[in-house]
Amino acid sequence: MTEFGLIDHIRTLCAALPDAGFEGIGDDCAVLPVGGNESLVFTTDLLCEGIHFLRHSAEPRTLAGKALAVNLSDVAAMGARPIATLLSLALPADATGRWAEEFVAGYCAASERWKTALVGGDTTSAERHITISVTAIGRVSDRCLKRRSAARSGDAILVTGTLGASGRGLRDLLEGRPDTEAARIHLSPEPQIEEGLWLGGRTEVHAMMDLSDGLASDIRRILAESHAGAEIDLERIPVAEGSDLETALCGGEDYRLLLTADAAQTERLCADFHDRFGRTLHRVGRITGPTDGRALWLRGGEPQPLDYAGFEHF
Amino acid sequence: MTEFGLIDHIRTLCAALPDAGFEGIGDDCAVLPVGGNESLVFTTDLLCEGIHFLRHSAEPRTLAGKALAVNLSDVAAMGARPIATLLSLALPADATGRWAEEFVAGYCAASERWKTALVGGDTTSAERHITISVTAIGRVSDRCLKRRSAARSGDAILVTGTLGASGRGLRDLLEGRPDTEAARIHLSPEPQIEEGLWLGGRTEVHAMMDLSDGLASDIRRILAESHAGAEIDLERIPVAEGSDLETALCGGEDYRLLLTADAAQTERLCADFHDRFGRTLHRVGRITGPTDGRALWLRGGEPQPLDYAGFEHF
Repeated sequence: MTEFGLIDHIRTLCAALPDAGFEGIGDDCAVLPVGGNESLVFTTDLLCEGIHFLRHSAEPRTLAGKALAVNLSDVAAMGARPIATLLSLALPADATGRWAEEFVAGYCAASERWKTALVGGDTTSAERHITISVTAIGRVSDRCLKRRSAARSGDAILVTGTLGASGRGLRDLLEGRPDTEAARIHLSPEPQIEEGLWLGGRTEVHAMMDLSDGLASDIRRILAESHAGAEIDLERIPVAEGSDLETALCGGEDYRLLLTADAAQTERLCADFHDRFGRTLHRVGRITGPTDGRALWLRGGEPQPLDYAGFEHF
Repeated sequence: MTEFGLIDHIRTLCAALPDAGFEGIGDDCAVLPVGGNESLVFTTDLLCEGIHFLRHSAEPRTLAGKALAVNLSDVAAMGARPIATLLSLALPADATGRWAEEFVAGYCAASERWKTALVGGDTTSAERHITISVTAIGRVSDRCLKRRSAARSGDAILVTGTLGASGRGLRDLLEGRPDTEAARIHLSPEPQIEEGLWLGGRTEVHAMMDLSDGLASDIRRILAESHAGAEIDLERIPVAEGSDLETALCGGEDYRLLLTADAAQTERLCADFHDRFGRTLHRVGRITGPTDGRALWLRGGEPQPLDYAGFEHF
């Protein structure tokens, strides 16, 4: 079974369970309305040694920041403010000393920087490999909450920054060049917390999610949840300097935000975004009517026979 | 650094972080007041193959139930009702097929039984060993919330059932006797959800926690948080049939509730508990005045030179 096959299997079985006031699975975070027109949102990620990081090439302080960042990015993608995390560590004997101390120091420094509390967790021994589990909690006004299911036919599709730097950085690391800017970006992603909050406050923004597996894969989740199709203009993809189109679409781990917005108000939205953040909000395509949830990739307006797939974990 | 050394290190670093409205670390769960005289509580646990379970001796369905149960037990220990969980799985290639399907089916069946939603999670590949991370969320009226820090001098110390069956069961399993009742109890612990809710509603109950590492270790956490001491009467420890005193005190994983209550009202509390659940609430000792947080172990009223320690994970 593939990763997404297993997730679909879980979703099917879950549907029969009580919802306890939660909205269904399908977004970057689970959503629990708590009254007062507010909701809490929840997300969790596992990082495994040998799969997501190699101990000898990842400084524990840097890795800790990344473990936190990828979760905060999911919270930001809902238009929510991250408020706290829980951190669990499974540590083999040779990681319980300096490695653990450095990791925890880095995690707390990153928590301070992103203004999140560390409110709980678990520590245990492990046979051989380090495993890191982070659960993040965010808070959001219900009117600012953004979901994957809210894309509407005719919406513009936008991304909050260039794509492909992280994928390029991973290649640099694997090829023994840990000192490039792309490698630094791969190791130390920045969750777009302020961007997510700002976009959450704009009513012309409809659907939103974060780009963790690559645009080619992630856009399909908005399309599936929104029962829509999309046309993406390949020449509009903002490829990061030193990267390439395929990496920008499939490399993953860019942690930019992917959103759809009312096309008629997109020019103003992009101008205001630039005023606020000094950076470009890139328009890369548009949502089309109900389809089978696939994206059409266009060059010069002509469909291209691309079969880009994002990263699957197994 | 030991497990508790690392936890202390984390707590010290955390203290400088914003609290985001959460109460500090120190209980079975983190507590977030959400208004309307209600709080949400959060807890998380990691289970690692080779440390917490052996793949060949743990049925994935049974293991899934246990992974959920140990988290729900932490929620119950706060007097809260568990409402939902997030589940993350790191799976080596040889566990992505039937093992994963069986695990997920077992997890959903246990969720249905204990009336909790499954609202999110993560799945990823792993190099070699399975890792399971569960985060549980509970809801509680603020007047029912029980903390480790609330024990008062003179309180009776009570436990909600017999102790030592799980430790005995682990020994049975390790010695090749998987079919004993104790082995079944070890593999399929029952979180005392209804007991926790009922005790949460009793104002004469002061401090509460769940017994996961063993009474000898766990009582010290109530004493540390409450700045108190304790006297435990060894002849009053309710040793499970087929187990022994040391296993009852140090074996861990019994998932009973450990609580303190106003001594003057304890007789009535125990009678009402028996009426409600048909089982005994066992009185095992009393909280004494401020001390260094140690428990005195008495036999026939005489201090015993015991140095029992609970389970430390590394």
